[in-house]
Amino acid sequence: MIAFGILGLFGAGQGFAQTDLLERARQQFKPIPAEAPALPGNPASPEKVELGKMLYFDPRLSASHAISCNSCHDLGRGGADEHSTSIGHHWQHGARNSPTVLNAVFNTAQFWDGRAKDLEEQAGGPLVNPVEMASAKAHVVEQLQGIPGYVDAFKKAFPNDKDPLSLANAQKAIAVFEATLITPNAPFDRFLQGDANALTAEQKDGLTLFLDKGCSACHNGINVGGGMYMPFGVVEKPGAEFLPPEDKGRFAVTNTPSDKYVFKVPTLRNIALTRPYFHTGKSWDLRQAVAVMGTSQLGAKLNDSEIDRITAFLGSLTGDQPKITYPVLPPSVTATTRPEP
Amino acid sequence: MIAFGILGLFGAGQGFAQTDLLERARQQFKPIPAEAPALPGNPASPEKVELGKMLYFDPRLSASHAISCNSCHDLGRGGADEHSTSIGHHWQHGARNSPTVLNAVFNTAQFWDGRAKDLEEQAGGPLVNPVEMASAKAHVVEQLQGIPGYVDAFKKAFPNDKDPLSLANAQKAIAVFEATLITPNAPFDRFLQGDANALTAEQKDGLTLFLDKGCSACHNGINVGGGMYMPFGVVEKPGAEFLPPEDKGRFAVTNTPSDKYVFKVPTLRNIALTRPYFHTGKSWDLRQAVAVMGTSQLGAKLNDSEIDRITAFLGSLTGDQPKITYPVLPPSVTATTRPEP
Repeated sequence: MIAFGILGLFGAGQGFAQTDLLERARQQFKPIPAEAPALPGNPASPEKVELGKMLYFDPRLSASHAISCNSCHDLGRGGADEHSTSIGHHWQHGARNSPTVLNAVFNTAQFWDGRAKDLEEQAGGPLVNPVEMASAKAHVVEQLQGIPGYVDAFKKAFPNDKDPLSLANAQKAIAVFEATLITPNAPFDRFLQGDANALTAEQKDGLTLFLDKGCSACHNGINVGGGMYMPFGVVEKPGAEFLPPEDKGRFAVTNTPSDKYVFKVPTLRNIALTRPYFHTGKSWDLRQAVAVMGTSQLGAKLNDSEIDRITAFLGSLTGDQPKITYPVLPPSVTATTRPEP
Repeated sequence: MIAFGILGLFGAGQGFAQTDLLERARQQFKPIPAEAPALPGNPASPEKVELGKMLYFDPRLSASHAISCNSCHDLGRGGADEHSTSIGHHWQHGARNSPTVLNAVFNTAQFWDGRAKDLEEQAGGPLVNPVEMASAKAHVVEQLQGIPGYVDAFKKAFPNDKDPLSLANAQKAIAVFEATLITPNAPFDRFLQGDANALTAEQKDGLTLFLDKGCSACHNGINVGGGMYMPFGVVEKPGAEFLPPEDKGRFAVTNTPSDKYVFKVPTLRNIALTRPYFHTGKSWDLRQAVAVMGTSQLGAKLNDSEIDRITAFLGSLTGDQPKITYPVLPPSVTATTRPEP
């Protein structure tokens, strides 16, 4: 315990001048911008964003009419839920922990294994996954076509399309809405923008450790992650609780042997809001997750003081949460398809 | 069909002057006020309403952390869902159709059988119902106490309480939030307030029929219902699909033989948004529900034209839906109780 105390007094970060730390940080990270980024080939309009928001919150996209995008990517809870794996159709569980939708637009690809290249492609996945929303593709369109308010809303969102109401356009609208779900103005962003007081001394120490220990080799860029693929357990395999042998990660996408147990490096943005952690969702404790990363990815047994400071730094990644006006959805009418019983 | 045409031309309402119709309507109905009503013994404050909103949207009040008040009383869908009976814990179904929370504050009691005297009492029901949210009473408090943001929010909402975080106070907060969920400014309200053009000619005909046929004997007052109990099938029992023999309604509350198959007369406010209909939720078609009411409650076989006009009038009961800023919920921390697996 004395050793920890000494480390606390002479922590790794305290030898560097603040300007040095800022310069080092700016080489690795970028702040979240204030405005939603544009999506290539899918220009935003207020009508398209509004349609996307309605679809995001509408449980009628699921076979049961009980599960919406927001059920598992809850915009009131860091864009995720708190289940190890989310509860889906008929109370089945998904295969991996629900990742946050917040700032997902900045990830290099979507899903833990990167099997969707962007938000638009991702949005089509859970809709038809039998353990998630469990809709048939044709059913989604039939369902929406039976709701007059959606027929109008698609026309307004896609004014130049001959056939505006389609699954592809639903995915486009959801994607432009999701691109608005960014969280600027985290203490760490303000630090990157030059406010030296935006981080506490402990958070600055944690940032220094994050850089020195090598965390930022993978968790870097605008999303402090989300930009590359790495094997989980590159130095030492964590226990089967965190890395069960049957989920081979990106190998299932690429069929390349070196992709076994490779996953997309997750964003650490808003990580304090999005427990539980790892693709299994089996760690409820951010400090534990930091420790596991140390041993499995860096071959470093972090001590309690280091874990505290890195965890404090991670707390500085919580940004302004999106302000959402809950959508009033277009009502079903007699001709609208009913939920399955 | 000729007969219907003649009835259409010389419909029951058309012989009355509009001022007469307005006077008759004002004797039976009152408009929804612009402001939320005060609750006796439970004064509102901005902090209490905000806390109530957070609790209303928070799935962590359920054992699974997957079901919130809003899951079945969706503020984007008329304050209800579209299931005959809602999907609850482990995909079980509730016993009766989920009634709308909108304007529920104006009902004389809560639940289809009136077993809760007010919103505050009602809010405690689904929380602990094993087929709904399935929490244990003690668990709700333990869960909330493990979330630091809630500890603060209860202190602010109940500043004079020695023990602010309690299940009773959670129910009070939810009740004051729900009291804000009112829908003023429906066309019918504007008509009652003197705007003769707020209803179409067909809707005025429908209102006249609604008065003449006797619908308003039960569906009256501010909520066009919600003010009394009546047997379903008072003239003629509807089929078992709509009135299954095993659900004896209010009899289970009072144990009074005359209360067999007695239910609270439901509000017709926003009825066009809240299909399906009846306590069984077995009618998806508002016109069908109107016809069944005619035969079962009034002994009147309404013709198609009458049903059309009454249904048109019911459409005038859709008011301004509450504008809700989706709450950012206080985050769980390591010490917070996890959802059941």
